[in-house]
Amino acid sequence: MDAAAFRKHGHELVDWIADYLEEPERYPVLSRNSPGDIVRALPASAPEDPESFGAIFADFERVLVPGLTHWNHPGFFAYFAATASGPGILGELLTAALNQQAMLWRTSPAATELEQVALGWLRQLMGLPATFEGVIYDTASISTFHALAAAREARVPAVRALGLCGRDLPRYRVYCSAQAHSSIDKAVIAIGLGHRSLTRVPVDEAFRMQTEALAAAIAADRAAGVVPLAVIAAVGTTSTTSVDPLRAIADICRREHIWLHVDAAYAGAAAMLPTHRHILDGVESADSLVVNPHKWLFTPVDVSAFYCRRMDDVRAAFALTPEYLKTSEGDAGAVRNLMDTGIQLGRRFRALKLWMVMRSFGASGLREHLARHIELAQRFASWVDADPRFTRMAPTPFSVVCFRWEPDGTGAAATLAPPAADAREVALDALNGRLLDAVNQSGEIFISHTKLNGRYVLRLAIGHARTTIDHVSRAWQLLQDHAARIQESV
Amino acid sequence: MDAAAFRKHGHELVDWIADYLEEPERYPVLSRNSPGDIVRALPASAPEDPESFGAIFADFERVLVPGLTHWNHPGFFAYFAATASGPGILGELLTAALNQQAMLWRTSPAATELEQVALGWLRQLMGLPATFEGVIYDTASISTFHALAAAREARVPAVRALGLCGRDLPRYRVYCSAQAHSSIDKAVIAIGLGHRSLTRVPVDEAFRMQTEALAAAIAADRAAGVVPLAVIAAVGTTSTTSVDPLRAIADICRREHIWLHVDAAYAGAAAMLPTHRHILDGVESADSLVVNPHKWLFTPVDVSAFYCRRMDDVRAAFALTPEYLKTSEGDAGAVRNLMDTGIQLGRRFRALKLWMVMRSFGASGLREHLARHIELAQRFASWVDADPRFTRMAPTPFSVVCFRWEPDGTGAAATLAPPAADAREVALDALNGRLLDAVNQSGEIFISHTKLNGRYVLRLAIGHARTTIDHVSRAWQLLQDHAARIQESV
Repeated sequence: MDAAAFRKHGHELVDWIADYLEEPERYPVLSRNSPGDIVRALPASAPEDPESFGAIFADFERVLVPGLTHWNHPGFFAYFAATASGPGILGELLTAALNQQAMLWRTSPAATELEQVALGWLRQLMGLPATFEGVIYDTASISTFHALAAAREARVPAVRALGLCGRDLPRYRVYCSAQAHSSIDKAVIAIGLGHRSLTRVPVDEAFRMQTEALAAAIAADRAAGVVPLAVIAAVGTTSTTSVDPLRAIADICRREHIWLHVDAAYAGAAAMLPTHRHILDGVESADSLVVNPHKWLFTPVDVSAFYCRRMDDVRAAFALTPEYLKTSEGDAGAVRNLMDTGIQLGRRFRALKLWMVMRSFGASGLREHLARHIELAQRFASWVDADPRFTRMAPTPFSVVCFRWEPDGTGAAATLAPPAADAREVALDALNGRLLDAVNQSGEIFISHTKLNGRYVLRLAIGHARTTIDHVSRAWQLLQDHAARIQESV
Repeated sequence: MDAAAFRKHGHELVDWIADYLEEPERYPVLSRNSPGDIVRALPASAPEDPESFGAIFADFERVLVPGLTHWNHPGFFAYFAATASGPGILGELLTAALNQQAMLWRTSPAATELEQVALGWLRQLMGLPATFEGVIYDTASISTFHALAAAREARVPAVRALGLCGRDLPRYRVYCSAQAHSSIDKAVIAIGLGHRSLTRVPVDEAFRMQTEALAAAIAADRAAGVVPLAVIAAVGTTSTTSVDPLRAIADICRREHIWLHVDAAYAGAAAMLPTHRHILDGVESADSLVVNPHKWLFTPVDVSAFYCRRMDDVRAAFALTPEYLKTSEGDAGAVRNLMDTGIQLGRRFRALKLWMVMRSFGASGLREHLARHIELAQRFASWVDADPRFTRMAPTPFSVVCFRWEPDGTGAAATLAPPAADAREVALDALNGRLLDAVNQSGEIFISHTKLNGRYVLRLAIGHARTTIDHVSRAWQLLQDHAARIQESV
C-alpha cells in the first residue's frame, strides 16, 4: 500500500470511525454471534495474491463487525466499562505509524521521556508522592506480576541468580483479600511461589479486607516459619469496587517489613476527585501501585501505569544488557532504558495516547467525567434501594452497582427457615441469570454478574465517557420490563 | 472530542502520516536529541483545562518529532529493522477505535476467532504442522516466558499449587546457545529457576549451537541430579541470525523428554520462502515456537505469535476463572477464552492488523519482500567481501550482515603475534565504534553493533518494506566515506 492508497483508505476509515463514534448504538452492544461464525466465514488459508483494501474492509464489515462486542458503546455496563476516546484513538494511530520500539532511550527518546512526563502528570493528579517512579506495562496482570517479582527480589536472598529450587529456603506467603483479583493468583504461580502461597484474607460486610485477620495470618505464618513476602491491598475490587483499609494495611506492612502493592487498576483514577482522595490514604508507605488508564481514564487498551517506590528492585530482578544493546548514554547512566524495568524488551509508545487524553480532557474534564459516573451510579443505586423487588448487594463507593432481583419482595435480609432459604437462593440465582441473559439479548445494554456470599449478583458498571442518565435510566427500565416478563412466564 | 472533531483531526492526521510514509527521509533516522530534552520542554503537570487538539499536535511536532528514532525510515538498519505498513497502521487505527478487550470469547468473538484464523494462516505460510495451536502475546519476551512456564508446569510435580520453595525438589536446567536472546535469561529469572539454571552451550564457527556440547551438558547435569527442563533453539540469533541445528536438537530433546522451544522471533518469517523452508526442519517435534510479525512481517508493534503443541500445559499453568468471568459458552467448552492461555487477562485485538497485512500483501507479496531483503543483504555482504579494508564477521543466512572495518587491510584471519594482536583488536574496536557513531550521526542511516568472539562488530539489518538497493548502496558509501575521514584524522 503506497502513501496515496494509505491516504485514501485512511480517510475512509476516519469517516467510518467518526460515524461509529457518533452513533455506536446502531449496533447491539453484546455480539449476537455464535461460536465459530467467524472462523467458518473466512478462508482457511491466506490469499496467494495481494487483495485490495476495499475487499479487506468489506469483509471486516460483513464478517467481523457482527462479531464485535461494543466496548465503545455507552450501554456497555459489564466488567469495568471503558472508553476509547477521540484523542486516545488518534494517539494510537500515530503510535502505529511511528512504530517506536522504546527498549532503549536511543531507540525512542520521545517514547522514553514522554512516558516519564505522562506518568508524572498522572501521579500528581492522583496525589501520589513523587517518591513513586512510574513505568508503563500492557496490563495490570503484568504490573502486579512485576510488583511480586520485585518483592521476591527484595526478600529472597540471591533469588535472581539461584532461584527457588533445591535451596534451603523457607516457604513464602502473599496475602490479599477474598475479593482480590485473579491476576494475583496468576502472578504467584508465575514467579514460582505456587498458588497455595496466596492467603486470601476474609472481608468484612462491605467486602473490605479484615486487617485483624491479616495481622493474625501473618503472625501464624511467622510462628510456622513461613516468611511473609507481600500484601496486595485492593482499592476498588473487581466484584464490588470495595476499598481495603489501606492505611491500616500499610501500618502492618511497615511494621512487618512486607512489600505492599496496591491494586487500584480501576478505582485509582477516582483519587483525582477531592471527594475520593481518601481512598489512597496511607499510600505513601506502599511500595507499589497499579492504575490502568485503559479502564477509567478514557484511553484505549492497552496501558497500565505501574508506580513503585523501589523501582531499583524491579531493575535488580530484570535489568540485563547484552552487548548489542549497549549505548554510550546507557553506560554513562545518563538515561533510563525502559527495557531495564521488567521482563519485556519491546516497549510500544503507549504514553502518547495517555498524554493526548490528559491534555484533551484536561484535569478538570477527567474529574468531571469521573464525578458524573459516580453520580450516575448513585442514582441507579437509589432506584434499586427504592424498589422492593430489587436489593442492593454491596455499597457503591464508585461507579459500579451490585444488585439482585428478588421478586418475592422480601429483600436480602429476609429471614426464612434454612431449607426454604436455600431453595429460595437457588431459585433467585436462576432468575437473576435469566434476567441477565434477557437484558443482554436486548442489544441495548450489556451487564455482567458476580457472586457475593454465594449469591448470584448483577453488576452495572458505569464508565464510558458517552454514557448519560438516559442510558442508565434505560438500563433500569429494561431490567424492570424483562423481570416482569420473566415473572409472567414462571 | 466529539465525532465531528474526531473526523476533522483524524483527516489531518491521516494526511500527516501519508506525508510521513511518502517521505520519511526528511528526518534523521536516529534522533539527535540529548537526554532530557523532552522532559525539559514539557510542563511538569497536566493542564487543568482541556486543550485543543491543534495545540496538542503542535507540541507533538515541535517537541516529540525531534525525539523520534525513525523505525519506519528505510535507512533504519539497526537491531532488526521493522515496518509499520499501511494496512498494519489502518488495522491498529480500527483496533484502537473498537477498543476490544478479548479476555473472553463473549467480550469479543471477532478478536478471539480472528486470532485463530490469522495464526492459522501464518502457521501454514511458515510450514508449521497443524498440531501447533497459536496465541498472540505482546512480545517475544512474553512468548518465551510462557514457553518456559509451560515447560515448568509439565516437568515439576504440582508446581502450580506448591511452587518451588521449601520442597524437596531437584535443581532444574534450561539450555540455549551462547548466542541466544536475553529474553531467555529474564524468563528463567521470572519463573523462579534462577539465572544460574541457564546453561549457555558453546557455538560453532558459524555461531550455531554445538549439539554435542548440548548432549554433554545434559548428561553431566543428569549425572549430578540436575533435571533438564527445556532447550531453546534459535532460528535466527540476534547478533548474527545464525540458525541452530534444529533437527539434531529436536532429536536430543525427544530422546531426553525435554521441552523444546524455538526462538524464531525474527527469522521464522523466512520459512515462507522455498529457499529457506529448511530452517524449520525438525520443528514438528518441537513443543513451542515464537515468531514476531512486528519484526519481519510488516506489522506495527506489538504482535508476537506463540505456537505450541501442548497449549494445554500453558492453560494448566494459568487458566483460572473467577465467578465474574464465567459464561455459559465457556462452561460448555464451546469456545476458547484467550485469558486462559497465559498470565495476561486483558487481550488487545492484535490479530486485526496481522490479518489485514497478510491479505494486503498476499503470500506472494510477503515472500517477495523477504526474498528481496535477503538478496539486498547478500549484495552488501559481497561488497564487504570484495573490499580488503572490511571483513565479514559471520555468515549471512538472512538479511543481517555482520562486518568490521579493518583498515590495515589484513582481514580478520591475519596472524599477528598475540600482544600485537591484542593491541590491534582494541584499536579496531575503537575505530569501529567511531565509524558507527559517524555514520549514525549522518542522519541517513542507523546501524547497530554487537560483539563476536570478543570483537566489536557492525551490523546492518535489512527489513523495512521500503528499503531499496539505493538505501543499501548509500549505507555502504557512507561507511566508506566516514572510514576514510576517520583514517585521515588518526
